[in-house]
Amino acid sequence: MGDYDEEKRVKAPNKNLSSLDVDIFHHLGINSKCKHFNNIFSDIKFVCMGGSHKRMGYLAQYVADELKIDIPAGCALTNISHQTDRYVMFKAGPVLCVNHGIGVNSTMVVLHEVIKALHYSQASDVHVFRVGTSGGLGLEPGTVVLTSEALDGCLRNFLEVPILGEMVKKPSKLDGQLNNKLLQCALKDDDFQIILGKTICAWDFYEGQGRLDGAVCEYDEEKKMNFLKKAYDFGVRNLEMEALAFGYLCSQANISSAVVCCTYLDRFKGDQVTASHETLAKWQDRPIRVVVRYMKQYLNIRV
Amino acid sequence: MGDYDEEKRVKAPNKNLSSLDVDIFHHLGINSKCKHFNNIFSDIKFVCMGGSHKRMGYLAQYVADELKIDIPAGCALTNISHQTDRYVMFKAGPVLCVNHGIGVNSTMVVLHEVIKALHYSQASDVHVFRVGTSGGLGLEPGTVVLTSEALDGCLRNFLEVPILGEMVKKPSKLDGQLNNKLLQCALKDDDFQIILGKTICAWDFYEGQGRLDGAVCEYDEEKKMNFLKKAYDFGVRNLEMEALAFGYLCSQANISSAVVCCTYLDRFKGDQVTASHETLAKWQDRPIRVVVRYMKQYLNIRV
Repeated sequence: MGDYDEEKRVKAPNKNLSSLDVDIFHHLGINSKCKHFNNIFSDIKFVCMGGSHKRMGYLAQYVADELKIDIPAGCALTNISHQTDRYVMFKAGPVLCVNHGIGVNSTMVVLHEVIKALHYSQASDVHVFRVGTSGGLGLEPGTVVLTSEALDGCLRNFLEVPILGEMVKKPSKLDGQLNNKLLQCALKDDDFQIILGKTICAWDFYEGQGRLDGAVCEYDEEKKMNFLKKAYDFGVRNLEMEALAFGYLCSQANISSAVVCCTYLDRFKGDQVTASHETLAKWQDRPIRVVVRYMKQYLNIRV
Repeated sequence: MGDYDEEKRVKAPNKNLSSLDVDIFHHLGINSKCKHFNNIFSDIKFVCMGGSHKRMGYLAQYVADELKIDIPAGCALTNISHQTDRYVMFKAGPVLCVNHGIGVNSTMVVLHEVIKALHYSQASDVHVFRVGTSGGLGLEPGTVVLTSEALDGCLRNFLEVPILGEMVKKPSKLDGQLNNKLLQCALKDDDFQIILGKTICAWDFYEGQGRLDGAVCEYDEEKKMNFLKKAYDFGVRNLEMEALAFGYLCSQANISSAVVCCTYLDRFKGDQVTASHETLAKWQDRPIRVVVRYMKQYLNIRV
């Protein structure tokens, strides 16, 4: 293995892992001694993650088609995590597609396990992308936002979480260089914009994002708008629920990570997602389209 | 509607809801004007929730069989939320089975929407059960724990979350009377125990629950054990990731709620879930078996 690979290797920084004879990935339905374990993870260069479990098979097939991944006759991509129903995982050549569910909690669980698997398999130069959806601020719905910085609901760029009974601050850092490369993947005839902006990673879709239409709401429209304006002035361009987890765990493990989300609505204009299923489906495809352009460049495949 | 029904009616305490012409339940794939909306929700007395989406259909069918719910010839229970892939929802007579994914974030999103739907449909005397899995403390694996009080990772009995840029404390209260009734559902020949205990609702499965086997771990075994012992002395008997959300939103909406979890392992003895799939499946069924006993009593069906 060359110096470059070594320097870029995924490194889960938990020394306890070396003492485990076998590691049981409870939420991925595999263990570190299962058949093909190293073959699944060692050549991975990209991990694409989104909330929905059903979408991952579609994403993997799309990536396989676009990257011209050879799938043997009589075979089809299959859910590697079929022994559990917590998450799903598909492999299309050097690309792993894994769902993360909704929220930081759910994302942390699966990211811990994916990163450990990449670490054991000595994968190197890995990029993790969240290709998701979000609420926009002052943007045309359907815009793709690259997260420059993930913020919590108090506009702080770290996770503050209880560990062993005490609140601990965990840094969260996405890859600025990767964002620049993704920005350059915009094409002249794209019917949507790709922009860079800060992202609020909220703890909930309703109160956590200042919506007025949850089951509970203890503030009024004026207070909501004041907060959204304050966030906008601070550079926030969208709100979602997972970005801090990516910025935290990936940066700890020597993994380059980006959060690429389309917006479903402009939160300055409302709270409900009123676009049709067809429109939402079209918008939802934009992040993976952008990410695949970058993958092709990286893999030297003609765009 | 009698006084009793009125007093027991689900009430989402958000006054803004009355001004909505239609409410779009983005994560349930329905809206408040869709066909059968009131028929789906108005007669609901029980909502059973668990993490897994695949399990909900099984749960609904089990409940239908046990409660002798009449399903018309040529029909089968079907996923009401088929227009989305975020959550799934099945109805078996007066019982709704909905998954909540993993973590408080994910649970909040779907609870907001389920509670709004029950509110609009004027459902009354509704019980919400989480029937899930957890890590135990000092218990035989497979034990069923009823949560007396949900605590965060700092052993505090409330949610502290950012809303409009400020940290807000949200009370979380489960129904003690319902717990007592569930405790009385233990049968002499049960091959498992049902106990009452406090529950840590952690923000993550690894660091959040003091595990040593995550991708990142910045403490040692001694510190982990000290925390688990401290939690045990405080009355904690299991750790999971959703209880605070149930105690918060259900108590706000005049809904009686209980968190009923089997334990998969004793965290004093390890971190990895090593039991076989068959054993885990057997343990996983215990919470719903207990809850169905209560439903039968409530509905005056002979046990």
